[in-house]
Amino acid sequence: MTISMHSASVPVYLTMLGNLSKWLDKAVAHAQAQQADPEALLAARLAPDMLPLLRQVQIACDSAKFGVARLVEGVAPTFDDNETTLAALQQRIGATVAYIKSVPRDKVDGSEAKLVTVPRRTGDPLQFTGEQYLMHFALPNFYFHITTAYALLRHNGVELGKSDYLRGQ
Amino acid sequence: MTISMHSASVPVYLTMLGNLSKWLDKAVAHAQAQQADPEALLAARLAPDMLPLLRQVQIACDSAKFGVARLVEGVAPTFDDNETTLAALQQRIGATVAYIKSVPRDKVDGSEAKLVTVPRRTGDPLQFTGEQYLMHFALPNFYFHITTAYALLRHNGVELGKSDYLRGQ
Repeated sequence: MTISMHSASVPVYLTMLGNLSKWLDKAVAHAQAQQADPEALLAARLAPDMLPLLRQVQIACDSAKFGVARLVEGVAPTFDDNETTLAALQQRIGATVAYIKSVPRDKVDGSEAKLVTVPRRTGDPLQFTGEQYLMHFALPNFYFHITTAYALLRHNGVELGKSDYLRGQ
Repeated sequence: MTISMHSASVPVYLTMLGNLSKWLDKAVAHAQAQQADPEALLAARLAPDMLPLLRQVQIACDSAKFGVARLVEGVAPTFDDNETTLAALQQRIGATVAYIKSVPRDKVDGSEAKLVTVPRRTGDPLQFTGEQYLMHFALPNFYFHITTAYALLRHNGVELGKSDYLRGQ
């Protein structure tokens, strides 16, 4: 017995993007309770040369949309990377979820041997089979940005716990 | 076509545990270059109520070992959680890798419908199919602790980049 490419990808992205959305809601509530500006969190970083929360959320969305689109040779929605508010990030998460849900299951299934090419800013593009791409590039990269967003919120005092991370469990 | 439970789990754990080991080596080199005590990093936290680096590494190892053992009803090695040095954490990572490598591939494959029970400190145990456990509990939990360890090191000045996280790509 085996598992399908769809069940190893789409439900994972949807669960974690849904969680990310709830963390941002909690971040707004936390800031408002402290009479602080929630949008100030967008610039929060864990290190001067790490990306801020704004970019972590943008890239988490992109990791998920490309994580599906590249498996099906689909056209993912383009985002202009011009969000300046948490509300705009919520819209981006919503648009990402809507795109992922729109991809037919049977197009994702069967993609494990497909050649996937990932462009890089410098150097030759990376090439994977669909399965290698999913398990060794798309999912680790997605979890990197999701977890870093969570860590940034926790570092800035937002009340989150492991059950918020593993929601639904 | 589909992917196997082994290929969706064991190589992922081995790659990321190998990366974690290299990050800790870089942490030692970073501290020594600054004439600082590398072991001071073990107590580093991102928030007062988050676990320190020592525990993040311990739990990353446990997430991986249980992530395999529970699929095969195997007996994972027991660790006493008494590490006090980065060198001892490296030994734990090594023992975890050795255990994971020792589990026969054909025992992991075919575990996707197996009933997996995860005890909790309070409340009823969680129950999953093998596939649900792997994709919605074991891997997210593993990536949580791996990425938090990375974030802690970056937050404390250790020179790491995305290529260290996605090593081998």
